[in-house]
Amino acid sequence: MPIPDTSRLCVHTATTRPWPLARAISGYRTAGVQGITVWRDALMPQGVAESARRLRDSGLQVVSLCRGGFFPARDPGERQLALDDNRRALDEAAELGAPLVVLVCGAVPGQPLSASRRQIADGIQAILPHARALGIRLGIEPLHPMYAADRSAVNTLGQARALCDALGSPQVGVVVDVYHCWWDPALETEIALLGAAGRLFAFHLCDWRVETRHLLTDRGLMGEGCIDLPRIRACMESAGFSGWNEVEIFSSERWALDQEVWLGQVVRAYHAHC
Amino acid sequence: MPIPDTSRLCVHTATTRPWPLARAISGYRTAGVQGITVWRDALMPQGVAESARRLRDSGLQVVSLCRGGFFPARDPGERQLALDDNRRALDEAAELGAPLVVLVCGAVPGQPLSASRRQIADGIQAILPHARALGIRLGIEPLHPMYAADRSAVNTLGQARALCDALGSPQVGVVVDVYHCWWDPALETEIALLGAAGRLFAFHLCDWRVETRHLLTDRGLMGEGCIDLPRIRACMESAGFSGWNEVEIFSSERWALDQEVWLGQVVRAYHAHC
Repeated sequence: MPIPDTSRLCVHTATTRPWPLARAISGYRTAGVQGITVWRDALMPQGVAESARRLRDSGLQVVSLCRGGFFPARDPGERQLALDDNRRALDEAAELGAPLVVLVCGAVPGQPLSASRRQIADGIQAILPHARALGIRLGIEPLHPMYAADRSAVNTLGQARALCDALGSPQVGVVVDVYHCWWDPALETEIALLGAAGRLFAFHLCDWRVETRHLLTDRGLMGEGCIDLPRIRACMESAGFSGWNEVEIFSSERWALDQEVWLGQVVRAYHAHC
Repeated sequence: MPIPDTSRLCVHTATTRPWPLARAISGYRTAGVQGITVWRDALMPQGVAESARRLRDSGLQVVSLCRGGFFPARDPGERQLALDDNRRALDEAAELGAPLVVLVCGAVPGQPLSASRRQIADGIQAILPHARALGIRLGIEPLHPMYAADRSAVNTLGQARALCDALGSPQVGVVVDVYHCWWDPALETEIALLGAAGRLFAFHLCDWRVETRHLLTDRGLMGEGCIDLPRIRACMESAGFSGWNEVEIFSSERWALDQEVWLGQVVRAYHAHC
């Protein structure tokens, strides 16, 4: 039996949300995970500087910081606050050694999606100089259409690609999350186009459960749902993607487990189903 | 104050699910509703012939029968059963005087969406001669992508339009349900294209609640969610649609109410927000 290859396996701190950062770091190292994507809530208790020190000492590679975005707001003052916060996220990414900030673009319930989409483009445009100065990339993550009302008005890879084209910077690309995109009839075409344009910045893995019991916190472990993960991974790699396979699973059911047991299941499922 | 215009208001029996058909008929008449879309479960207790008699006597116009579809299956025998059932649905529609059968196309968890899409096209093709013989139209209803795993592999208006084009029959068109399509960046373009092609067969109304608490049975009453209903209705009418405005709300919360009170709320919300 070949030794399982964990050289491209990254886990999001949100996958093991109950663990504080230090515990996540030691748990991931013990489990053979080599990359970590840090959610900003995991930085809070000990602050960014101490988090950065621990990550540096850990030997784990920091793959990205989650998340910036949430640009739209009805009030210009609130949009300015969002820009400030996104610039802070970029500073944090730089301090942590994360080469990428993932953008969940945002939406305002009841505001026309077209308006939110304009505000998103304006917002990314506004923070681009800061990202460029720090050498941090911005990854637009289109979110499943069931989040269009309140989390992101960017809901397909095609939209995200058009947004990248409009912004016209090599600093901006797309995060492909199987949970959000697996249903898209244009999935394979869009991945190929994004690859050809050099815009495939990250790849997030989980599964879609049937039945899904909650819109936010019932994501599936790889292999227990209906997403054809090997096919999508093959698409990504055919399109030139050679980055990390990041496991990002929001699951209240799994957050209730012993997180060491849960992480073991994640690693085994990664080997078996991705 | 002008007298509210109910001349194009249709209600789905599923909106008042606790009511048997006879009670729905009398309730709709009292409330001034003039069209009814009948779900097949409402036919069961008294059978199709008795249902048809009551509908004929009611003076309500039968707008459509919900639903046919669910064509995909791994097993060819099961696909044959689906065709038989769809032909029965067409017979029932003819007997009820419903000019349209709504198709929820189906999907099989874990079967590639591309395979389900082929089986859907084959299934509609197979029942088309029967639909043509009876003079009943078939309306493909693209379902929200959150139902791609198990309810429909047709998830956008663009896909539904392409399917109509492939089938090439004026008997086949599209059902636009705001719940499924409101987020689509191509919404306006697609409605215009469908209108120009003579394929806008029906229009379903409800709203998208923020937060949505259940994937299936937490649809909102018009006006309590984030969908811009007047804009979408205007799009439909600009594209030449002059049919019914059908209220279809699956809501366990509202099914628990007195259905007469609930129907009153539906009618008032229709006048206020559509």
